[in-house]
Amino acid sequence: MKPVKVGLCGLGTVGSGTFNVMQRNASEITRRAGRPIMIEQVGARRDNPDCDTTAVLVSRDIFEVVNNPEIDIIVELIGGYDTAYELVMQAIANGKHVVTANKALIAVRGNEIFQAAREKGVVVAFEAAVAGGIPIIKSIREGLTANQINWLAGIINGTGNYILTHMRDEGRTFEDVLAEAQTLGYAEADPTFDVEGIDAAHKLTILASIAFGVPLQFDHVYTEGISRISAEDVAQADALGYAIKHLGIARRVANGLELRVHPTLIPKQRLLANVDGVKNAVMAHGDAVGPTLYYGAGAGSEPTASSVVADIVDVVREMGADVASRVPYLAFAEPNRDVEILPMEAIETAYYLRLVAVDRPGVLARVATILSEQGISIEAIIQKDANDADLVPIILLTHRTRESEMNEAIRQLEALADIAGDVMRIRVESLNDQ
Amino acid sequence: MKPVKVGLCGLGTVGSGTFNVMQRNASEITRRAGRPIMIEQVGARRDNPDCDTTAVLVSRDIFEVVNNPEIDIIVELIGGYDTAYELVMQAIANGKHVVTANKALIAVRGNEIFQAAREKGVVVAFEAAVAGGIPIIKSIREGLTANQINWLAGIINGTGNYILTHMRDEGRTFEDVLAEAQTLGYAEADPTFDVEGIDAAHKLTILASIAFGVPLQFDHVYTEGISRISAEDVAQADALGYAIKHLGIARRVANGLELRVHPTLIPKQRLLANVDGVKNAVMAHGDAVGPTLYYGAGAGSEPTASSVVADIVDVVREMGADVASRVPYLAFAEPNRDVEILPMEAIETAYYLRLVAVDRPGVLARVATILSEQGISIEAIIQKDANDADLVPIILLTHRTRESEMNEAIRQLEALADIAGDVMRIRVESLNDQ
Repeated sequence: MKPVKVGLCGLGTVGSGTFNVMQRNASEITRRAGRPIMIEQVGARRDNPDCDTTAVLVSRDIFEVVNNPEIDIIVELIGGYDTAYELVMQAIANGKHVVTANKALIAVRGNEIFQAAREKGVVVAFEAAVAGGIPIIKSIREGLTANQINWLAGIINGTGNYILTHMRDEGRTFEDVLAEAQTLGYAEADPTFDVEGIDAAHKLTILASIAFGVPLQFDHVYTEGISRISAEDVAQADALGYAIKHLGIARRVANGLELRVHPTLIPKQRLLANVDGVKNAVMAHGDAVGPTLYYGAGAGSEPTASSVVADIVDVVREMGADVASRVPYLAFAEPNRDVEILPMEAIETAYYLRLVAVDRPGVLARVATILSEQGISIEAIIQKDANDADLVPIILLTHRTRESEMNEAIRQLEALADIAGDVMRIRVESLNDQ
Repeated sequence: MKPVKVGLCGLGTVGSGTFNVMQRNASEITRRAGRPIMIEQVGARRDNPDCDTTAVLVSRDIFEVVNNPEIDIIVELIGGYDTAYELVMQAIANGKHVVTANKALIAVRGNEIFQAAREKGVVVAFEAAVAGGIPIIKSIREGLTANQINWLAGIINGTGNYILTHMRDEGRTFEDVLAEAQTLGYAEADPTFDVEGIDAAHKLTILASIAFGVPLQFDHVYTEGISRISAEDVAQADALGYAIKHLGIARRVANGLELRVHPTLIPKQRLLANVDGVKNAVMAHGDAVGPTLYYGAGAGSEPTASSVVADIVDVVREMGADVASRVPYLAFAEPNRDVEILPMEAIETAYYLRLVAVDRPGVLARVATILSEQGISIEAIIQKDANDADLVPIILLTHRTRESEMNEAIRQLEALADIAGDVMRIRVESLNDQ
């Protein structure tokens, strides 16, 4: 059978992994795909010493690859928004199928990309955009196709999970572990995308669309990072039987859809609570199947390449199928535009609060009264011994309540003369996996 | 688009779940599949009060369903070998696609079934045959298609996992928990298939074929059950930092393939060690992706139906693809018949041994000498206090060694005058998931 010809754009971390996996496992991949798949041309600004490209056409101009009429599938691994967008749109205009690992591009401009691809009848595949090597797009989009998804929750940023894991295991501060992660190459020099939750929000946007059949709506994701989490919060959570994880959560509720990224206390015995270091995991709960979980490497050269190459093989298969028989880009033939993404004020969850009070009689009663007046019921309250400055840390766990009521309670708490500084608030979710 | 017509054979636990999920989620399934899928006819010996079949043609003779020319896809959910085999082969002969949840049928007669299906150009799908609702076939067969799989290990029998979980959590005996599981409906009146590992061996046979591209070889799986595990073994393992899980393990080694089902000590911090109750999980380790894990309900009406319906949708899609573009039944276009399944004597693993010695001087030295003479090195040895009968339990952990050498050592240990009764041997695996 005639080989399928791939144009590989980008030869950085993921590009080099893709190149090497395709060379090393060529015979197994051919046996699985039923026909040979070869890299016809590589487009990269510079060579990568990890790849032996001597037998392959190499171009310094990625647009030469996109315009090469021999090529069937363009693999976009250059990252970023602008050039990547141009590249992908040109590939589609040229009638080529596209495989990409670019979560930002898909989350932010996916709707227009899929529209263009639909009009040209080409496939755009993006398994590697979410959770690296874990086949999470395929599992939700095809494996759980019988289900109405109730909710999903995932550790979908390895850097954040690395930092939280080491804060917990070693009692260290956020800043300290971040600096170490930067030295080890697990965090960027500018870590904003990872630690402030933007990268996780990109991925959650994609997961939610394929799970719930809604258009990509990155702008509607509530996004909160982990930079305010203190060593004390980690220790207090642990003492209460919880781990703090940075989660992306999407949940179907009666009046719409919750889409939120934030630090979350989850019970220690949950599998998700035991996903440590740079690893990723996504839990998806379907009405028929119940809870399911998918775990693996969320980033890295060859793990991400594993998903890129799986996509290439899927595209090769879809090339032999009529367009109506292909898996829709976002799982559903038509996205449902009538589902409201709820504002954060409308969601309901439980809360962990940590406040610092001046040590005088009645302070606990005043705190409890404010919560009670907002209809917030308390599950646990722990008052520590006063420190040298006569300040008393108070830790609270509440039952489920509405975020708007909690916002009002926190406003009133912070206005109390007894309370020093800001109230620390972390959301608490049960995420039952049994 | 013309609806695809399904014939559902069997209306028991999984059949009724399939019927109900397809009715309840019909609109979401249609939106995903891109065309309506309807149950045209049900074949079942009796009605199921959980299903409202009034709008559907019902036949008491499943072969009427298989011979109905209107039907595109036959769903075999009657279980067992003989009638199910006849049914599936007749469906294939009639040019119909087949979806089945029948692990025994696929593991034992899959090679002939796939051969017949290949000749007729029809699809046979069997996601529900392994690990219930977990999309494990799809994840390994398609999601990890870029990888050479190094090993996989799974908790793939919910009954066994339920028993071991309750033995550990409540310090109870095997017989005691089994009786409870039978009362609760988690175990059959004759529990042999589950507790002696035959069911797990069926599933491991299938997983190994799709992971390693070898023919189905149920007869070559080493199979050992959990009925000899005592409450003391569970407690000793726990004290040493291990959980005992009943695992199916397949591993590629230099000279062949290991295929084995047996109780296994694994470190407590592994995710697999924390998969409890009736839940299933499979860990698959690929050369590119590293360790990945898939978790969920391994049995039950609607979880299993989730996989059956996902298969139906996949078959609908494959109906629109040329035969060469379909995913091969066992992942590879042609299975590799040259890979040897190693006899159990040839595998290497670490071991937990529990022996009961007569309390007299030198017994520990004699035990250590026997192991040393077989080249077996000891990681830990624990001698307990003597009981009333002057018997001393000795617990040993060894480093990795060859099974044949361990067999010889156990033979010699049991021949010692100092040793009372049989030596209990449980294999120990690290199964690193980081």
